[in-house]
Amino acid sequence: MKKFVNDVDDILKEALDGFGRAHADLVSVHHEPTFVTRREPTRKGKVALISGGGSGHEPLHAGFVGLGMLDAACPGAVFTSPTPDQMAAAAEAVENGGGVLFIVKNYEGDVMNFEMAAEMITCEQASIITNDDCAVEDSTYTTGRRGVAGTVVVEKMVGALAEQGGDLGACQALGQKVNGATRSMGVAFTSCTVPAAGTPTFAIGDDEIEMGVGIHGEPGRKRIKMKSADAIVEEMIDAIAGDLGGSGDALLLVNGFGATPTMELYLVYAAAAKRLESKGFTVARSLVGNLCTSLDMAGCSLTVTRLDDDLKGYWDAPARTAGLSRTAMA
Amino acid sequence: MKKFVNDVDDILKEALDGFGRAHADLVSVHHEPTFVTRREPTRKGKVALISGGGSGHEPLHAGFVGLGMLDAACPGAVFTSPTPDQMAAAAEAVENGGGVLFIVKNYEGDVMNFEMAAEMITCEQASIITNDDCAVEDSTYTTGRRGVAGTVVVEKMVGALAEQGGDLGACQALGQKVNGATRSMGVAFTSCTVPAAGTPTFAIGDDEIEMGVGIHGEPGRKRIKMKSADAIVEEMIDAIAGDLGGSGDALLLVNGFGATPTMELYLVYAAAAKRLESKGFTVARSLVGNLCTSLDMAGCSLTVTRLDDDLKGYWDAPARTAGLSRTAMA
Repeated sequence: MKKFVNDVDDILKEALDGFGRAHADLVSVHHEPTFVTRREPTRKGKVALISGGGSGHEPLHAGFVGLGMLDAACPGAVFTSPTPDQMAAAAEAVENGGGVLFIVKNYEGDVMNFEMAAEMITCEQASIITNDDCAVEDSTYTTGRRGVAGTVVVEKMVGALAEQGGDLGACQALGQKVNGATRSMGVAFTSCTVPAAGTPTFAIGDDEIEMGVGIHGEPGRKRIKMKSADAIVEEMIDAIAGDLGGSGDALLLVNGFGATPTMELYLVYAAAAKRLESKGFTVARSLVGNLCTSLDMAGCSLTVTRLDDDLKGYWDAPARTAGLSRTAMA
Repeated sequence: MKKFVNDVDDILKEALDGFGRAHADLVSVHHEPTFVTRREPTRKGKVALISGGGSGHEPLHAGFVGLGMLDAACPGAVFTSPTPDQMAAAAEAVENGGGVLFIVKNYEGDVMNFEMAAEMITCEQASIITNDDCAVEDSTYTTGRRGVAGTVVVEKMVGALAEQGGDLGACQALGQKVNGATRSMGVAFTSCTVPAAGTPTFAIGDDEIEMGVGIHGEPGRKRIKMKSADAIVEEMIDAIAGDLGGSGDALLLVNGFGATPTMELYLVYAAAAKRLESKGFTVARSLVGNLCTSLDMAGCSLTVTRLDDDLKGYWDAPARTAGLSRTAMA
């Protein structure tokens, strides 16, 4: 294993210190317990959005703390759920009279710990569980479907509504609507390597790919032989579109897992847009990049969200975070 | 080799088609010859900034086309110089009465082809050659020093001045000043793999790193045994600070080469900021991310630019590109 590490036990703290310092205009990093808060003041009565999960998926979630997205994020150790005291402390820090909305990816540890945090705090609160990964039902750490890169779409759109003054019920309802209109699927060419383990999470042949992989390297639908970009993308888009149903305007997100060159992500985007349109969708909004990563895994995921005019508006609204910026442009 | 590829001969065209479509609000992609232009109209008399180079370094350069940075970029095949007809066509497309400024990384093919392009066009013109890599003098494709991630800093700052109305001479002088105040050095943990070659560019042991590597996998200063993040960063910052000289406010850029997790880049940033400050610098501006990549190489480079108030202003000025956005914030 070759990684930029001093002591494996210190990587989260050291990385967060760097993150906080590099983005001191956007975020504040807190330790013991660990959480990241938005630096820019919020309007009194704004719903406070809090997410969190294991580290190793950066920029998710701390990279989406800022204007128009999250108020706070709670990073756990690599691929490990944060603890309830983190969410409770974050809620106390950012609650501003509008209640707290937890955005939780559907992993058993995350769900359980956010539920425990909810019992520890007294302010008005609600939760959204994201489960956009249509590759498999139930998985290594999950009952039901996994929450993956579609969570970025939920955080962006709900963040916009919260910024615009939507109340807790409206924000929760929007999050559920967006999650319900979103499907994702991933493919891995290589395994990720968790620093504390020091060896790849799974073995995979030089001519094999894992179709439907999870963002911690969990097994997908099947192990198949390497094939062309178009053929890989067609299989993923067909699975997504078939499960999602409907037609019309859509957001297409191509998410790199961490080790795939940007050039390849754009090539995948071109193929995915074409295939999605052959299924009756129109690609009306796009995002390409490393948004919900899996450490150093090579591969990518595709996410599709069905859009109506409201969702387009929330997607286009201003955001200013380390991982995603949107200016108020035409 | 596992990559998202259909036909190796088509990857640049397919990736650019995806890039152009995903960012249709920002750029237009032109083929035969290949170049990318800014979508947003420019003011009459604005200096047109044009860069280019081999592909595989994305977002450099096409990802920096847009308001506040480049007017056009000319992508060559992977790690291959673009041809003079590309630069000439780009110049013709974007020249708007203020002349053309070519920003060229110091590689023999790039320099020669931009010089040939300069002879093909009749408008007022000037060039900046970037050579910020202080790892080695002369290299596989270079006489003198290589131009690497510091080019992003040049493109950002000169782009701001051009947007603000600086004339061709002032833009060229600023580019030379920024380049002269900038030093970079890289380290590789793994090789990149050029798609057309299909095998890694260089071999490296499981316990070895290439200190001072170039962005095409060119040899650096030495092959050394893996060591701690702090020790690697200290060696790089000491080389950079020693060569750059001076003290005071600085920009610190931590650039991922393509396969290094974001979490590690922030850990490197924390170590680099600390070491740089021990050398008498104050980190006044920061950028962390994959800006000038080397396909799927693991590793990163550090870039330091000495700042004065003018340069801070150009760095902070608005930019709206696929690879770098800056809103007009406090």
